[in-house]
Amino acid sequence: MKNVPVVIVIFGGSGDLAHRKLYPALYNLFEQGLLAENFAVIGTARRPWSHDYLREQVIDSVKETGAKTNLDRLTDFASHFYYQSHDVTNVEHYTAVKDLATELDQKYQAQGNRIFYMAMAPRFFGTIATHINDQKLTGSGFNRIVVEKPFGHSLDSAKVLNDEIKASFDESEIYRIDHYLGKEMIQNILPMRLSNPLIKNIWSSKYIKNVQVTLAENLGVEARGAYYETSGALRDMVQNHIFQIITLLAMGEPASLSSSDIHAKKQELVDSMLIPDSEFVTRHFVRGQYDRTDDTFSYLQEPNVAPDSKTETYVAGEVKFKAGALKDVPIYFRTGKKMREKKSRIDIVLRHMNNLYGQAHSNNITIIIDPRSEIYITINGKKIVGSGIRRENLTYRFDDYENAQVADGYERLLRDVVCGDQTNFTHWSELAKFWEFIDAVELAWSKENEAGKAVIAQYPQGKLGPVEADEIFETPTERWIYE
Amino acid sequence: MKNVPVVIVIFGGSGDLAHRKLYPALYNLFEQGLLAENFAVIGTARRPWSHDYLREQVIDSVKETGAKTNLDRLTDFASHFYYQSHDVTNVEHYTAVKDLATELDQKYQAQGNRIFYMAMAPRFFGTIATHINDQKLTGSGFNRIVVEKPFGHSLDSAKVLNDEIKASFDESEIYRIDHYLGKEMIQNILPMRLSNPLIKNIWSSKYIKNVQVTLAENLGVEARGAYYETSGALRDMVQNHIFQIITLLAMGEPASLSSSDIHAKKQELVDSMLIPDSEFVTRHFVRGQYDRTDDTFSYLQEPNVAPDSKTETYVAGEVKFKAGALKDVPIYFRTGKKMREKKSRIDIVLRHMNNLYGQAHSNNITIIIDPRSEIYITINGKKIVGSGIRRENLTYRFDDYENAQVADGYERLLRDVVCGDQTNFTHWSELAKFWEFIDAVELAWSKENEAGKAVIAQYPQGKLGPVEADEIFETPTERWIYE
Repeated sequence: MKNVPVVIVIFGGSGDLAHRKLYPALYNLFEQGLLAENFAVIGTARRPWSHDYLREQVIDSVKETGAKTNLDRLTDFASHFYYQSHDVTNVEHYTAVKDLATELDQKYQAQGNRIFYMAMAPRFFGTIATHINDQKLTGSGFNRIVVEKPFGHSLDSAKVLNDEIKASFDESEIYRIDHYLGKEMIQNILPMRLSNPLIKNIWSSKYIKNVQVTLAENLGVEARGAYYETSGALRDMVQNHIFQIITLLAMGEPASLSSSDIHAKKQELVDSMLIPDSEFVTRHFVRGQYDRTDDTFSYLQEPNVAPDSKTETYVAGEVKFKAGALKDVPIYFRTGKKMREKKSRIDIVLRHMNNLYGQAHSNNITIIIDPRSEIYITINGKKIVGSGIRRENLTYRFDDYENAQVADGYERLLRDVVCGDQTNFTHWSELAKFWEFIDAVELAWSKENEAGKAVIAQYPQGKLGPVEADEIFETPTERWIYE
Repeated sequence: MKNVPVVIVIFGGSGDLAHRKLYPALYNLFEQGLLAENFAVIGTARRPWSHDYLREQVIDSVKETGAKTNLDRLTDFASHFYYQSHDVTNVEHYTAVKDLATELDQKYQAQGNRIFYMAMAPRFFGTIATHINDQKLTGSGFNRIVVEKPFGHSLDSAKVLNDEIKASFDESEIYRIDHYLGKEMIQNILPMRLSNPLIKNIWSSKYIKNVQVTLAENLGVEARGAYYETSGALRDMVQNHIFQIITLLAMGEPASLSSSDIHAKKQELVDSMLIPDSEFVTRHFVRGQYDRTDDTFSYLQEPNVAPDSKTETYVAGEVKFKAGALKDVPIYFRTGKKMREKKSRIDIVLRHMNNLYGQAHSNNITIIIDPRSEIYITINGKKIVGSGIRRENLTYRFDDYENAQVADGYERLLRDVVCGDQTNFTHWSELAKFWEFIDAVELAWSKENEAGKAVIAQYPQGKLGPVEADEIFETPTERWIYE
């Protein structure tokens, strides 16, 4: 792989994301030769670390992934790392980062290429972007900024943030990252849809009755109660991960696999998204909070959670589009904490077809994203004993070897950033529409709250959410496939 | 299950088929209650067995299947068996069978119902049928005759046999048995085709490029050289098993699952079968004989095989229909002895579709009939590492428990005979057309033989047949999927 000269600045270089994800991912890019002699990484954060201390952290972070490493190579890799103590609100500190970047650019012949990675609390994103601009941290080569979620907490706040970033960076330089788009089976959606006649052929409302996306977590809010109170499942999971998955499922076929052709089709789809009114939300959305058990807190009992909180730890809902491959197909989604198991899956439910074997079930295509990549098609076959029909799952499940080959989402996405491929990043105009949808649901809910008509289902831990979610469907013959 | 009163007469009651298949199958029907107090079985053959000796044989045959049995039940079952020594060409002996049948009918209150099972050398079928008629062995209730394959060895000889049987039995009383039609995955073809929108939808020449049926045997002709010299793979396997499988694959959708509606659609298909001319046979058929190895004979070296024999132990060929679901779709088949493994399978090959992932392969649906029931769909998915497409097989394979549940084909088909269901038996008009096809191929081959232009490929044992079979396809982009 041809190596890319670049200086990477990581804001939040002492943080958890950098340690767990970014440093190991960068090491893999180094092993693959995409990063070689001509790169340097500046970690910046408040803490007064030294270069050497950062390098030790980097080496530890790679070792902790359990990957086989060569210590010489790893030490070589870590020698490209530099630490700059830095307070994001202190303008002068940006000069220090700038000077270090300039020095390293020369030292490593990085050709003026810069990547800025925002790996810290989102409230600083705007400030950092502003100062990158006014302190002229950008280089003379390419400049790219990677922005972690959440990108705002409403359409208005997202607009403000976007304007701040836009002051320094063009849309083509902004990489709004959603690590779900780096997952193996998410990246497999378009290839599977478009390269298989058997699947492509049924990918329309003529054959598909509905689509179901489930992102279930088994953990609760843990220590993040204070943050979670400002977010909720809708903003935390639906606005980004779920809508990204749905976009890949529902978009029309692009003219090519280029980033611009793919985003053109995504945009066409997203522009046709039906924004729900209050009536639609009341009818097709359910919000919930996990209940207590003998051993564990309910959400309302968690630390830093208001005892009368209306924040949802579970949401189920529906979205529809007036364009794209799945025009008019109801797309249902649900996500929640403290559910039965960690499971991310997509169920494509085909229409029932009258047939000679009366009791035949619908055909489904199921894609398991987590915890292990799997796809299966549910078909009908004859019962072995007696007459009639039974279900059979035709399954492809990644084995241990394949599973070990799967790259971490961050590695894939960082590679895309280094290579300048925006395919798997979110464009502003897509994001804005998603916020418009989320805002509409939040508005409907706040009206319910104000009218004292809020129905926030308390759901039992270890199940798949509140029973109320079984009632969100458009027709009585629909039901959740994953149950 | 409601029991059916009946006296069953098995011609060939001391033979291998009766011992290995029919007696265990009848025992299972007894266990299921379909045969209960009101049935008796007369075994007839040349050997001078006693009732008790036959009963011992029956008990042994059931025990040899390894089935769990209750000895009291088994003894009770065997007590319904009677032996009548009998020379099929001696008219007087039919009177003895007739008298025994009449006596047992009264003893067991069998209501005059009779089933005659032809489980002996096919050269006697006609004689037996004639004498059943002239000696009036038929009862006052239902009368059914079960005829084993081969049903003739050409259209003319089949017609003669059929006329002999027709003298005593109406078409609705004749059960031409093909045990392949009792196999689990063969019986699964119509349910899978017709109850799954995902499959039904692509079941036409618009999506299906070709169909491939492979019946591979790993054994040679063993001690059956003399018989085999009069038959060959075409008559022994294609005329019956392969054409039956193809009929189920290619027939149109019946109006109902009734025997008459299914046979109506089979007939419509079979009537549209293209009868090959010599040119077609030369182009799209390959015949072969297995070659010697260091340790084993070639076919030409087998006992009772002519050293210049032209009998094929392998045949590959093509058939097409002008009606049915697979109108105009090339259907390729091959069968042979001494091949790599015992394997019966069907491959449905879908057309390639231009797509954004250039190298994508065709989608295939594969049904494994033997040795273990399995279905899988081959689709494209993204490569885990790097870009591009790889194949993935979505599989449903019977596990040990399911495999143990699968009834033997003879059990299913005998149940159908007892219940009077002709769905899975061959009608004369279908059979006649199959012979017409076989005769046309044989004629083309005999012309080649006479002109000294016979090409009989000597193929290596333990492979999938002669390489010449890779050239029978209509287009250069077609190839055997099972290889």
